[in-house]
Amino acid sequence: MLRLSKPQTSTWKRTLTTMATRAIVYESDGNPASVLSAVTCPPLPNPTGSSIALKHVLSPVHPSDINAIEGVYPYQPRPRQLDVGGRERTLRIPGNEGLGEVTDVGEAVKGLKKGDWVVFGKKQSGTWSSGQILEEKDVIKVDRESGISAVNAATLVVNPFTAYNMLSDFVDLQPGDWVVQNGANSAVGQAVITLARLRGLHTINFIRKREDLSDVQTYLKSLGATHVMTYDDLEDKTITEQVKEWTGGKDIRLLLNCVGGKATTRMLRLAGKNAHFVTYGAMAKEALSFPPSVFIFNNLTAHGFWQTEWFKQKSQQESARIIGELVKYMATGKFKEPNHEIVNINGKISDQEATTIIRDAISKVAHGSGGKKLLLQMDPVQP
Amino acid sequence: MLRLSKPQTSTWKRTLTTMATRAIVYESDGNPASVLSAVTCPPLPNPTGSSIALKHVLSPVHPSDINAIEGVYPYQPRPRQLDVGGRERTLRIPGNEGLGEVTDVGEAVKGLKKGDWVVFGKKQSGTWSSGQILEEKDVIKVDRESGISAVNAATLVVNPFTAYNMLSDFVDLQPGDWVVQNGANSAVGQAVITLARLRGLHTINFIRKREDLSDVQTYLKSLGATHVMTYDDLEDKTITEQVKEWTGGKDIRLLLNCVGGKATTRMLRLAGKNAHFVTYGAMAKEALSFPPSVFIFNNLTAHGFWQTEWFKQKSQQESARIIGELVKYMATGKFKEPNHEIVNINGKISDQEATTIIRDAISKVAHGSGGKKLLLQMDPVQP
Repeated sequence: MLRLSKPQTSTWKRTLTTMATRAIVYESDGNPASVLSAVTCPPLPNPTGSSIALKHVLSPVHPSDINAIEGVYPYQPRPRQLDVGGRERTLRIPGNEGLGEVTDVGEAVKGLKKGDWVVFGKKQSGTWSSGQILEEKDVIKVDRESGISAVNAATLVVNPFTAYNMLSDFVDLQPGDWVVQNGANSAVGQAVITLARLRGLHTINFIRKREDLSDVQTYLKSLGATHVMTYDDLEDKTITEQVKEWTGGKDIRLLLNCVGGKATTRMLRLAGKNAHFVTYGAMAKEALSFPPSVFIFNNLTAHGFWQTEWFKQKSQQESARIIGELVKYMATGKFKEPNHEIVNINGKISDQEATTIIRDAISKVAHGSGGKKLLLQMDPVQP
Repeated sequence: MLRLSKPQTSTWKRTLTTMATRAIVYESDGNPASVLSAVTCPPLPNPTGSSIALKHVLSPVHPSDINAIEGVYPYQPRPRQLDVGGRERTLRIPGNEGLGEVTDVGEAVKGLKKGDWVVFGKKQSGTWSSGQILEEKDVIKVDRESGISAVNAATLVVNPFTAYNMLSDFVDLQPGDWVVQNGANSAVGQAVITLARLRGLHTINFIRKREDLSDVQTYLKSLGATHVMTYDDLEDKTITEQVKEWTGGKDIRLLLNCVGGKATTRMLRLAGKNAHFVTYGAMAKEALSFPPSVFIFNNLTAHGFWQTEWFKQKSQQESARIIGELVKYMATGKFKEPNHEIVNINGKISDQEATTIIRDAISKVAHGSGGKKLLLQMDPVQP
């Protein structure tokens, strides 16, 4: 990370101290493959007071980041005043999650020092840039000494966190209990499998039919999945008998859904009495349809889960506690890195070349990216 | 109520002591208009021990009674051995709710005496008969001295109870809060309006379009409804603005549903953040369809409510407390009787005539019965 002299004026300072040297930006909502571009801004100033300077190590590209750029997500990145080639422009920097490395700290910073790793406690932090200046209170330290990998740390706060909370917040699950989920090959789905295994819970996992089905089944079982089936299997009504045999007749009390549509309605057949059905995504972009009887006679409760809202409701201490627990799992190899691909935007290429790279990467994610999580690695622009 | 000599044998006694002198019965599930008939059984014996003899004063015909006879309700009346014209037959007596009057008590009965009124604490009590012998613990006393009417007492346990609990169990509502419901002209709907008014809550009520719309609106407003609209009004998206104006922007946190289908999905637009959506019926016999976003971003929770299950979960004390509260409201005129029609099956007519009356009455209920609750008044057969 480069550091240059302080900005000339106080207005200048107020608007430009949080800039990254290279950032992915957009002006107004739209198709990311058209509206996104890479820009170069002046290097970061030195942090003062309780602020810290960060280098962004890795920044995931989540489907929700894409929805935010499209303008169809409840939160959008905020507009920022950026100095692009000497001209002041109002632009938004996407990126909700990422791993930051502290490169410098202000004189009032107490809990962080150069070289520390942090994740972001606030939504839409603008991680698709090479770095930024932030307040100490807006980040949560990740114990780098634990040996956690950068990939795990960079993808900690959205997906494993969601999985952790969904397994904890709705049903008091005990070892030997069963959880059903769809979209089981998603990043959250994989984290659910892993965390369930670590807690001694069994999982019945649904994924769509595909050519490499048995590979995916083998992979998910290697993570700890008890059973992996396809949505088509739900069409056969004898599945309820099959599942009863597996569970020994134990009621299934937690079902997790990120898909929607008919296969999800069919999955409700597996719900025991007093079950909780938690929706955290809608990959099929279809409505959720429930027979009224599952609510009235089976006492199902249907909830939504949104990690962003969770952070608003819970304390920083609670977040730090769960992050600590996840870091421990990850550092000791109990929690595999997600399947991923790192997209490097190096400091030597032009903004135009960088724009092409980011647009291609986004198209990939929009088309499924082969189940791999894309991680941006944005270097500061080299002069 | 007639009382004759004791049955001849102990087996006889065991199987026949709970008989009514006239009962509506059926042998196997089916269309009530075909399978129901009236039969005459020997009179009740004297109660002994902790048992009581009851005359059934009034017994409502609920849609769920009809579903039970059709075999599409989770609980069916149990098979009983009845002596019909000297022949022992296995038959079921419908009737989940009713008002009983104590006509005699066993020597160990402590809390009840002749002339007391009681309602039934157990499901499927077989109230469509002229009377029965029951254990003291299976009934809950209703304070007859309070002045509560027989109609109110006979319809207390299913509908007003459901309304009371739905207004209490899901959201901690404070005076000035708003509740939205559909099927507002149903017996439960009317009870919701009344109880909401008594608690200082506002209600926005939806009913279907009909010829006598303004009459129904006037009637529901006389009960205390704040606003009464039709499902068609929900098609106009400006309704959310209209409702915001009424509520002063206050979030609506409780929505009650007994309909289902598209109009119910549209009603979700009125839900504020963190709202609870409670389904207790499915009059449209259609699925419930939710946009996933209402769960994820609006944090809606969808529940079912079933009074039968409530009784299984809660103590007799809790039931008695709520019944006491409802009786107080009813006795002081704060809770109107439901619109109703009494169908008398008098003791002088033949079983064949009684069968025609009950089948006609059931057909009426199945076709809506003009919003009136039908109440059976079954006299013992006169010799």
